[in-house]
Amino acid sequence: MTSYFQDIAPVTYDPQAKGLAFRHYDPQEMLGGKSMQDHLRFAVCYWHNFVWEGNDPFGGQTFDRPWFPADTMDLAKRKADAAFDMFKILGVPFWCFHDHDIRPEGASLKESHDRLNEMADYVQEKMENGGPKLLWGTANMFSNRRFMSGASTNPDPDVFAYCASTVKSCMDVTHRLGGENYVLWGGREGYETLLNTDLDRELQQMGRFLQMVVDYKHKIGFKGAILIEPKPQEPTKHQYDYDVATVYGFLKRFGLEEEVQVNVEQGHAILAGHSFEHELAMARTLGIFGSIDMNRNDYQSGWDTDQFPNNAPEAALAYYEVLKAGGFTTGGTNFDAKLRRQSLDPVDLIAAHVGGMDICARGLKAAYAMLADDALEAPRRERYAGWETSDHLVEGKTLEQIADYAESRGLDPQPVSGRQEILENIVNRYV
Amino acid sequence: MTSYFQDIAPVTYDPQAKGLAFRHYDPQEMLGGKSMQDHLRFAVCYWHNFVWEGNDPFGGQTFDRPWFPADTMDLAKRKADAAFDMFKILGVPFWCFHDHDIRPEGASLKESHDRLNEMADYVQEKMENGGPKLLWGTANMFSNRRFMSGASTNPDPDVFAYCASTVKSCMDVTHRLGGENYVLWGGREGYETLLNTDLDRELQQMGRFLQMVVDYKHKIGFKGAILIEPKPQEPTKHQYDYDVATVYGFLKRFGLEEEVQVNVEQGHAILAGHSFEHELAMARTLGIFGSIDMNRNDYQSGWDTDQFPNNAPEAALAYYEVLKAGGFTTGGTNFDAKLRRQSLDPVDLIAAHVGGMDICARGLKAAYAMLADDALEAPRRERYAGWETSDHLVEGKTLEQIADYAESRGLDPQPVSGRQEILENIVNRYV
Amino acid sequence: MTSYFQDIAPVTYDPQAKGLAFRHYDPQEMLGGKSMQDHLRFAVCYWHNFVWEGNDPFGGQTFDRPWFPADTMDLAKRKADAAFDMFKILGVPFWCFHDHDIRPEGASLKESHDRLNEMADYVQEKMENGGPKLLWGTANMFSNRRFMSGASTNPDPDVFAYCASTVKSCMDVTHRLGGENYVLWGGREGYETLLNTDLDRELQQMGRFLQMVVDYKHKIGFKGAILIEPKPQEPTKHQYDYDVATVYGFLKRFGLEEEVQVNVEQGHAILAGHSFEHELAMARTLGIFGSIDMNRNDYQSGWDTDQFPNNAPEAALAYYEVLKAGGFTTGGTNFDAKLRRQSLDPVDLIAAHVGGMDICARGLKAAYAMLADDALEAPRRERYAGWETSDHLVEGKTLEQIADYAESRGLDPQPVSGRQEILENIVNRYV
Amino acid sequence: MTSYFQDIAPVTYDPQAKGLAFRHYDPQEMLGGKSMQDHLRFAVCYWHNFVWEGNDPFGGQTFDRPWFPADTMDLAKRKADAAFDMFKILGVPFWCFHDHDIRPEGASLKESHDRLNEMADYVQEKMENGGPKLLWGTANMFSNRRFMSGASTNPDPDVFAYCASTVKSCMDVTHRLGGENYVLWGGREGYETLLNTDLDRELQQMGRFLQMVVDYKHKIGFKGAILIEPKPQEPTKHQYDYDVATVYGFLKRFGLEEEVQVNVEQGHAILAGHSFEHELAMARTLGIFGSIDMNRNDYQSGWDTDQFPNNAPEAALAYYEVLKAGGFTTGGTNFDAKLRRQSLDPVDLIAAHVGGMDICARGLKAAYAMLADDALEAPRRERYAGWETSDHLVEGKTLEQIADYAESRGLDPQPVSGRQEILENIVNRYV
Repeated sequence: MTSYFQDIAPVTYDPQAKGLAFRHYDPQEMLGGKSMQDHLRFAVCYWHNFVWEGNDPFGGQTFDRPWFPADTMDLAKRKADAAFDMFKILGVPFWCFHDHDIRPEGASLKESHDRLNEMADYVQEKMENGGPKLLWGTANMFSNRRFMSGASTNPDPDVFAYCASTVKSCMDVTHRLGGENYVLWGGREGYETLLNTDLDRELQQMGRFLQMVVDYKHKIGFKGAILIEPKPQEPTKHQYDYDVATVYGFLKRFGLEEEVQVNVEQGHAILAGHSFEHELAMARTLGIFGSIDMNRNDYQSGWDTDQFPNNAPEAALAYYEVLKAGGFTTGGTNFDAKLRRQSLDPVDLIAAHVGGMDICARGLKAAYAMLADDALEAPRRERYAGWETSDHLVEGKTLEQIADYAESRGLDPQPVSGRQEILENIVNRYV
Repeated sequence: MTSYFQDIAPVTYDPQAKGLAFRHYDPQEMLGGKSMQDHLRFAVCYWHNFVWEGNDPFGGQTFDRPWFPADTMDLAKRKADAAFDMFKILGVPFWCFHDHDIRPEGASLKESHDRLNEMADYVQEKMENGGPKLLWGTANMFSNRRFMSGASTNPDPDVFAYCASTVKSCMDVTHRLGGENYVLWGGREGYETLLNTDLDRELQQMGRFLQMVVDYKHKIGFKGAILIEPKPQEPTKHQYDYDVATVYGFLKRFGLEEEVQVNVEQGHAILAGHSFEHELAMARTLGIFGSIDMNRNDYQSGWDTDQFPNNAPEAALAYYEVLKAGGFTTGGTNFDAKLRRQSLDPVDLIAAHVGGMDICARGLKAAYAMLADDALEAPRRERYAGWETSDHLVEGKTLEQIADYAESRGLDPQPVSGRQEILENIVNRYV
Repeated sequence: MTSYFQDIAPVTYDPQAKGLAFRHYDPQEMLGGKSMQDHLRFAVCYWHNFVWEGNDPFGGQTFDRPWFPADTMDLAKRKADAAFDMFKILGVPFWCFHDHDIRPEGASLKESHDRLNEMADYVQEKMENGGPKLLWGTANMFSNRRFMSGASTNPDPDVFAYCASTVKSCMDVTHRLGGENYVLWGGREGYETLLNTDLDRELQQMGRFLQMVVDYKHKIGFKGAILIEPKPQEPTKHQYDYDVATVYGFLKRFGLEEEVQVNVEQGHAILAGHSFEHELAMARTLGIFGSIDMNRNDYQSGWDTDQFPNNAPEAALAYYEVLKAGGFTTGGTNFDAKLRRQSLDPVDLIAAHVGGMDICARGLKAAYAMLADDALEAPRRERYAGWETSDHLVEGKTLEQIADYAESRGLDPQPVSGRQEILENIVNRYV
Repeated sequence: MTSYFQDIAPVTYDPQAKGLAFRHYDPQEMLGGKSMQDHLRFAVCYWHNFVWEGNDPFGGQTFDRPWFPADTMDLAKRKADAAFDMFKILGVPFWCFHDHDIRPEGASLKESHDRLNEMADYVQEKMENGGPKLLWGTANMFSNRRFMSGASTNPDPDVFAYCASTVKSCMDVTHRLGGENYVLWGGREGYETLLNTDLDRELQQMGRFLQMVVDYKHKIGFKGAILIEPKPQEPTKHQYDYDVATVYGFLKRFGLEEEVQVNVEQGHAILAGHSFEHELAMARTLGIFGSIDMNRNDYQSGWDTDQFPNNAPEAALAYYEVLKAGGFTTGGTNFDAKLRRQSLDPVDLIAAHVGGMDICARGLKAAYAMLADDALEAPRRERYAGWETSDHLVEGKTLEQIADYAESRGLDPQPVSGRQEILENIVNRYV
């Protein structure tokens, strides 16, 4: 193993362990004909774990990783070594990256692409030698100052073109590495002030760009899903992919709702004023559920805290929606989570993921049992049962016909209990 | 005049007045070929002004109006007398109502409709005798306990039918009274908990209902607009018409985006995490701008405070978007605003509207001047000017073609200043 | 038993039950020499359960209780019968009330007091016949319109005097019924707008009033605690008892920090931007911890939702702070929680409390075990261990002396991991 | 002038100017015997303007200043040259700094101090040659990783000692430069998680540290005020100096309320759930008003946006409280504001301040006129007039005596209108 995680052995399932172990996540445990590993499809991200230096808006680097500042190819490879060591320790089946994460930027667009390809070769070998598969790739089009006013929505068409080249190169690499999805997070696709923004034009540019991405996917035969990751704001004051419902409207506007799905994050849901399960239920209902980022936001903080999940009842409600959506196909459970900047040690990186994976396992098992027992679905069906027998009374009818029906019968509908607390109690038997 | 406002004379434009007067709103002042009255199209609502008793979640009635509790037709008429007296004092061209506002509920659906029609006759006479026109009508399908679990989205199909009858009767009356729009605010179209909610079914019910409403509008020859009023939550935990972008997606899903527009409220925008001008700009961009509710939310309160507008710079940004959208057609500026519950006196009702109307007038004049001077549009055009000359480089091209263009030229786009503070300074010269 | 809960038997501890039962709360289970009942000291409130009619800002009564509108003494007694039946079914050791909850308001102050005393006789008999004890009493000085501009902080000194009489009568009754605390929640002690508020004067009035309450407590020999319940806002825009730290400053200003403690509510903590455990830890640290209201706020709603607790990990962190504070003395666990307004049935009332009590029991047991195992305290001590050996280096020193120490030694302190994720994992082994 | 602002002439008052000019701020205009310059006491900060590189949590440097990275003394001097050039262009009477802003950190504590002193010499000469005076100095004890777990509240006593040395050196320099205040902002004085925090100990450390600072102030004869700057959170989850009321309680606890005042920022007020005027009114009421940071937060963003003020009505309400507090003594109006990261040009820096200063001037003039006209104070006095004539009825009385008074007279207080809307209208005549 690498020197970075030198003392840390691969983590195994051992409910009685004293030290680092999975107490709930047993990859091989079967739930309904599918192993827990296949249900959860865990992925670990490169950026927060191996690139982020611990800075926040009021402070600089806290982490001291031997590959920092990773501005040479040698350091980038050293970083990759550590990353794949960690993937092995955790036994995760997937990983994720931005172009920017795995290669230092070159002096030119071309050099950046070359470096990306060289690093792809480097990690491909690791992947083939027992490493994890690629859940998704993506391009970082928000950190460099050239993207400060947007990527595809930039007022400068050269930035639009630059982004086309960047995404193409990232899709190519994602495809080559067998990635199962390609993600777009529009960190700067939004505005700081409406005063200098042509909202209509920017949304048109974004639609046009997405159409090109979809076309290119088909052209190269990439079978994975194209995923948009909603977030309401931060870094921008307003981000166009505000939440799931907003993304759906955007896709419908450009006729892309059959081509693109969403990657939903708990933290972003919270920032948008929603619960995580709401966003997942909405994605399922609108037919665009794809994948999840399983990192939470602190409920009292108004910025993106990207913390590891630590609340099993919340995880249960999330996986309940995942299971109702039919489970993951190309998607999975990515930890777009970062350590607190005071968590300096290698073991913090490992323990944070182990804890998060166990929370997900607890949530999944509870969710699976609730579904298997029909614990929530039976009362739900009962609540709407009137429609099963009465839908014909309204189906295909006009407003006047239904109004006439109501008036002629002198309808005076009586409310019945919604039983929220009883249903909450039921959930609490499972978590 | 009625005894209720006995001391209060009609309010006139008088910038130098000591007492109650419009200091900024001169209905006849022309801005670009259109009078201020026609630009603003002020409307006063019935509910907060004449129905609400001053209660809040922790306290009961504070207002002492002679027509309370308005549970007989006589009291309802006394209430209407006061309302139309106030409309006259303010000189507003429009008013708005729910069915529930103008008639006491009857013992049966039929009696409720009969009473609504009787009251419609009563107010129609007032309207014809110099009273204001009707900006919009709407149905209250959230106060009565029968709607506690939703209106069109209710688990009980009888409630759906009841709502059909209710909306039909309200549309009929709105049409008869010459209403220029019909509004749907889905106060209970949402959920308290996902645990007992069939999200998919409820959204389908809501779409079906809206389609029927649109069909009925055409059938009866109602020429006004059908408007949905977005709000993210309250009274429900989640309201389906969350914000403008969400409503757009809903309309697209059911193919109604050409048929239905939005009535945007500042307070609801704030609760959804948006600025008012954002929601207006979004409605314009998506082609569904209809009308506005010009009442603000307290920025530090997490519930709907429905306060009268009192910040002229904010009003300027709102009317700027209204003007960019081409101004109102059937829509207008409605005050869905309520007095603070401690504002007990008749003069409070009048003064609150006078103050609000003056804020709108100041905002409109500033907005008009900014547009006339090209103060913001010139820098905006300049910011995107590159697209005017370079759009051909990307138009109709594929991702590879544009990528190739970027790579072959070695594009290295340089950022330029977004000039936000300078633009804010420009706005401040006008407000 | 009463007809209202006719089918519902007293709830017992039975982890394997199919139906209504405590699955975690065994009143007699001992944790460290104290029964769970004595640790938790559960109380049920009168107001939300028996007085509230289900109304919200957009809708009226949904509940249909046989004692409504409880505006006669007979109905008030019928309400009391139902309340004490419920207390018996739940087996709770305590209950709580406002004056307003148990008696209809009289035509005069005196009649109101007489009615309060008559009802006190009525419930006293029930309490003595196996009923629960009184955790606390309080006065409702926010619902009636006379309090619309404040109670002790009212601009009208007659309201101040009225409140003195009201609180005196409530303290007398609380004392007579053996209440263990007296609570003040200042629902209208705050402002709607600073424009009409004399902040300085109002705070002085509030301090003066509290001093009189404390004096009166001593005079009548009431041994219970005087508790203030912090809340940041709602119904007012700003409430003076904003949060624990604010109340502490207020008490210090008036020299009352030894006389008054706080009753902390999870929902109010959330509305103030804090976690519940924060407010509890702050109360402990400042020496003013008294009691808790164990009802949560929805994290995505900006108003007081007063929901039953349903998240065991959160309850564990709360009881951890309670135990660190030495547990309750006169205080207890009150459910200031209300059913959702769609939960119409008698069984909803019972089930909601049963579920909440079980959540508290799970939380308490986890908290107790964490403390017993020194699971969090050991690492905490270790983190600050440097101070144990080095405090002398700074104790009693001046800034220059310590500066000189730092400079002469060339101190260059190196950060160590804060281990947040590891500590979160530890907590998750217990919940 | 320096090459950095080469084209920009000193900004003058010229209401009719086409270009860069003060349209409202005339430094010499007298308001009640005091010039506007002396009322407002503008200060410009060093950190956001000359140190910040434009980075945010999702992106790196955008600004391209010739003195970056300012890691040598030469570059630090070049930075100082630009800063003092900007101060001259703006004509501001004050500036502010952290140690960290004006000197590169040395290899040791001692070298850092030496560099600070050398830079102090450098800027002192500029100050003496027509430059602005120093409003306040402060120490940056949050950016370097050594402070990641707190400054005076750090678990490591060596950090406490390091901070003592840092603050001493900063106070010495502030004193030498004639600074009128010394500010402490506890950016890391708080916690990320309660799980690893000893709240009691940390607050004790903070109190002890502040006592030493106060003692040292007296020892060296520094006549300026010691100011604490409240902020609720960010970068930490919870910051101990949450808001004005919290700071007051902290000062009272350690007996420092006569020694320390607050520096109130609009943006921090918003993040704490308060209006700016609330925090100012509270500081005045509690006797700890000191100075202000006149930068706003975006109402829809949950992090510290530090934007230049741009809303004149809001500024009016703020300065109204400043004037009611007697105006500034040692304090002033500091712009702790930063450009948007897309505002790249030198002119953006100047224009942002010019716009902000004009907003303040408009606010001050409106506030002054409202006070001079007794426009708000007259109705306020009237509202509480009852206390002027009736205070004797309650003064010095006990609860029983006042209760007896209320009961014997059969008090039945009638509410009177709070007139909020009318008062808001009055304000709008002035802004």
